[in-house]
Amino acid sequence: MNREEWDINVAKELWGLNHSIRGSIIAVDEEGYLVISLGEQKIRVKNLLEKHGFDVAYIRVLPLIERTMRTVYETFTELAKVHDFKGGLQPVFPMKVNPIEVVIDAIWRYGEKYRWGFNTGSLGELELLSKYLEKGGRILIYDGVVSDSVMKILVRFKGNGWRVIIDVESEHDLDILSKYPEFEIGLRIKPLFRPGGKWAHSAGLEGKFGLTVNTLVKLREEYKWIEERSRLLHIHPGSQIYKWSDIEAFINEAYNIFTQLQSHGFTSIEIVDLGGGLAYPYLDTRNGTIESPDYGLIEYFNHILKVFSRLEKHPTLVYEGGRYIVSAHRILVAKVVDIRPYSTEQAQSLRSVRVEDFLSNVRSIDDLKKLVNEYKKYIHKSKQVHQYTLEERELAEDVISKVRDELLAKIYELVRNKPSQIESVINDPLLYKLVTSPSKRYILNFSIFADIPDSVLVNQYFQVVPAQRLNEKPDVLAVLGDLTCDSMGEINEYISHVKTPLEASDWFTKMDLRLMLIPGRRLKLGGVPLHLPIKGENYYIAILDTGAYQDPLAMKHNLIYGAPEIILDEKNGEVEVKIIEKNGKYL
Amino acid sequence: MNREEWDINVAKELWGLNHSIRGSIIAVDEEGYLVISLGEQKIRVKNLLEKHGFDVAYIRVLPLIERTMRTVYETFTELAKVHDFKGGLQPVFPMKVNPIEVVIDAIWRYGEKYRWGFNTGSLGELELLSKYLEKGGRILIYDGVVSDSVMKILVRFKGNGWRVIIDVESEHDLDILSKYPEFEIGLRIKPLFRPGGKWAHSAGLEGKFGLTVNTLVKLREEYKWIEERSRLLHIHPGSQIYKWSDIEAFINEAYNIFTQLQSHGFTSIEIVDLGGGLAYPYLDTRNGTIESPDYGLIEYFNHILKVFSRLEKHPTLVYEGGRYIVSAHRILVAKVVDIRPYSTEQAQSLRSVRVEDFLSNVRSIDDLKKLVNEYKKYIHKSKQVHQYTLEERELAEDVISKVRDELLAKIYELVRNKPSQIESVINDPLLYKLVTSPSKRYILNFSIFADIPDSVLVNQYFQVVPAQRLNEKPDVLAVLGDLTCDSMGEINEYISHVKTPLEASDWFTKMDLRLMLIPGRRLKLGGVPLHLPIKGENYYIAILDTGAYQDPLAMKHNLIYGAPEIILDEKNGEVEVKIIEKNGKYL
Repeated sequence: MNREEWDINVAKELWGLNHSIRGSIIAVDEEGYLVISLGEQKIRVKNLLEKHGFDVAYIRVLPLIERTMRTVYETFTELAKVHDFKGGLQPVFPMKVNPIEVVIDAIWRYGEKYRWGFNTGSLGELELLSKYLEKGGRILIYDGVVSDSVMKILVRFKGNGWRVIIDVESEHDLDILSKYPEFEIGLRIKPLFRPGGKWAHSAGLEGKFGLTVNTLVKLREEYKWIEERSRLLHIHPGSQIYKWSDIEAFINEAYNIFTQLQSHGFTSIEIVDLGGGLAYPYLDTRNGTIESPDYGLIEYFNHILKVFSRLEKHPTLVYEGGRYIVSAHRILVAKVVDIRPYSTEQAQSLRSVRVEDFLSNVRSIDDLKKLVNEYKKYIHKSKQVHQYTLEERELAEDVISKVRDELLAKIYELVRNKPSQIESVINDPLLYKLVTSPSKRYILNFSIFADIPDSVLVNQYFQVVPAQRLNEKPDVLAVLGDLTCDSMGEINEYISHVKTPLEASDWFTKMDLRLMLIPGRRLKLGGVPLHLPIKGENYYIAILDTGAYQDPLAMKHNLIYGAPEIILDEKNGEVEVKIIEKNGKYL
Repeated sequence: MNREEWDINVAKELWGLNHSIRGSIIAVDEEGYLVISLGEQKIRVKNLLEKHGFDVAYIRVLPLIERTMRTVYETFTELAKVHDFKGGLQPVFPMKVNPIEVVIDAIWRYGEKYRWGFNTGSLGELELLSKYLEKGGRILIYDGVVSDSVMKILVRFKGNGWRVIIDVESEHDLDILSKYPEFEIGLRIKPLFRPGGKWAHSAGLEGKFGLTVNTLVKLREEYKWIEERSRLLHIHPGSQIYKWSDIEAFINEAYNIFTQLQSHGFTSIEIVDLGGGLAYPYLDTRNGTIESPDYGLIEYFNHILKVFSRLEKHPTLVYEGGRYIVSAHRILVAKVVDIRPYSTEQAQSLRSVRVEDFLSNVRSIDDLKKLVNEYKKYIHKSKQVHQYTLEERELAEDVISKVRDELLAKIYELVRNKPSQIESVINDPLLYKLVTSPSKRYILNFSIFADIPDSVLVNQYFQVVPAQRLNEKPDVLAVLGDLTCDSMGEINEYISHVKTPLEASDWFTKMDLRLMLIPGRRLKLGGVPLHLPIKGENYYIAILDTGAYQDPLAMKHNLIYGAPEIILDEKNGEVEVKIIEKNGKYL
């Protein structure tokens, strides 16, 4: 059952290209190029950048937005039939996820047939949306802080036939809304249950948003009109909930609060908005880890519909997931402009250090462990470093690199001869770190702060994939450094999860002999598996799923920002390409 | 020795206004207002915002930049005399710290007499600096990634009489610089020593920047011209090193590398650039904690000068600290627009829960501990929460809040009667968390993502201080929430370090009875000590020291950004006020 050759199927697993949302739109062609597949056309990402002379660009694949919107709508509709659910779906796009014109415009256009609405949270978002004010009313849920200037705009939306629902979260909101009796309101309630995930602090009694039940009860006595004007119940579990059990618990609590409120006077609530907990699979292998949720859209809707169809009268359900809709549409592509050693490398010209002997008696990984410990101690004992002569410094660096390389070669040899020894490697923290450590630092013509800010802001995992040579086994593990003078401007984590069986020699990279995969195992690597560019080769790297949040969170660190955009759309079976130059300042 | 009254001196300690860099420029007047003191004038921050009708603004106090530049220059010059150091100081401003026109212009103007130069790292920064290209040459150290377009601009600077030194970090850089033999180069070397701090990963052999000694030795064989063209040694320990022992170790290593390189052929190196490790005291109490370094400018320069004056021929020393120069100049001010309960509060109108009895036998803090543990378990056992009736949910919230308030009142009473019992409180994690927990969430008209991005990016500590009522004891501990629909948009940590002796009853806030200080102790609180605004009062909050990095790192989350600016300068003893409106989208 073992396979011997590197092929495109392994590549697709290693670089996360088997993906339920991107589907076949982001694919690999027979010559190993990353392609965008629209209609009959397969467009090579590398060619797209070279053709326009870009070293860095955002490719926006708008049909991927259309596709996710359709998937959400159709999945819900199919499952509603199964559960005989009559309440209907009201999808809205939370503008904060990507409030730029090209995205909002796509949501507006593709959303026409689904009556896709919007969730907004600020004056700025309302102003942007005002472009569509007179183009036909949709639903608008406002859940930011309320003020008179916000209300002024909302009055205009309502006047133009939009259905406007305003979330209340405090007495202050109610004071303002007392003056606008014509508006329907939403109750944003704090759930007691707190799920895991990076945004867990959104929920629970101490969360930033919403009312506790106690506060609601108190306010109801003063503002008696709450009961009749409440149309919507809004409960949000926090973003990107990656554990199915948390989603289940949250939906169950939301259902409970809804039925309890209805039977305690809030009889006009007819819409339930469960917020944006649905996780986007940045890696689609269902691990139940932060980058790879253990459930998908079908399970999500199925449980919601199962629970809410128990009721006699079914509410309208709001779908508010934004990551799910727009994450896939933007691909960041950047060229490698420099390749540096990650740590120290052997200065071959120097008198070579004799370290060969120390490995002669090593027969197994267990024999190695003690040596690695010694090695680590050696690296860290450099306390008297300020007294080193240049020769001692060279020697220290030489020993560090030479021993490292010898150890790696030995591990490779041992595992190749007896694959089961890999268990001892990955179970020993020092060995594991060594064998998954990067050997190179690729400098890319981009800024993490400008182009994928969440990478540094919340340590967001984004799928990295070379734009070419996907039919070749990678040479090295490499950290990706950006152009900024900031040490945080690096990507130094990669998740590998290959399922195809392969010979042990193919678990390692070709040149630096790092471990890059074990069939059937999820591994966290210290760098991205990549090829060493051939002299003169333009080696491009794509970073996928950057379509949610990365545009509004862009920073101007070192004044490096403003990548040009290549916007792809499909019109009558033809691919339409639009270029937006942004006077970007990169290299 | 105990004092009984709240006074302005205690206020200045509690809100971090005794500060060596801001000095008396940011002060408190007799009526308890936060003032900016320039020349003879004391300008109230609150009045400044009200006068211009701003709910949020950046106040830029340009004389604070002038002051820090002078302090740096004069401190160095004085200490150089002490150590008989002849090498001289070459200050440069690293543009990445704040590449906006008003700041660069201030550096240019105030820097005239010191010949203050610039450190740049990108094309964008060079373009911005080009405004001064023909205004007289200064020194320009370029340490970003090199490219032909970068070189094209550097050639122009050099042609206009600037001294341009280009850092090399890789073979790629040397390839490009081979084509430009007229340029002096800097060697950026990776130190072996890695200090603590948030940017520790800048240093060490695996750091993003610089060459290892081994790589340098290798490259020297191929690029023989490195030796004669090397003028500068650049070693950077990472930003904001807060431990004196780390600074000392770093300087010692840098000195060692310098002397070793000189005696191994690099005889033309005449400038040493120690990078930007000097920490800015966000809190100036010398704790040796991340927000409060245990050394200052004097110790820093004194050690450098002591070490480098050992040499026969003294090098020129580059001062590159940017935070130190510009942090203090920008004050963010925002108005409180809503006050919400932080967690659940008692619904007084309901049948009151009987919890009084459970505290009747409590005589000491130790008696309390078991109860608090029970309380915590009660909060966390809500597993069956999805089956709660509304009454049960109310009751659960009511018990949580009522018990919390009773416990706090008891702790207050016990400590007031016997102050030494405070030790038992702060040594018990649960009690400590309870007694320093916030009771309110103040919503401010600002966006943490736009206005103080480092707060969320690197958990940067910024000093928060009310703009008024500093002569009154604070009422509550409050978390500061921003306008964004993002749970990360909050400040929920405050460091209190009051040294003045006070009665135990004054250690607690007035209304919610939280612990806000213990004389002589550094405490981490879960919220900021603040006053409850009186009905109709415009309560403003200032956030200090936001002048470094926050401008370029600003994000547009929820499209909330673009605060107006109030720029204060001093001309011939008069205060000049300039307003920059930015069409900001806040509330």
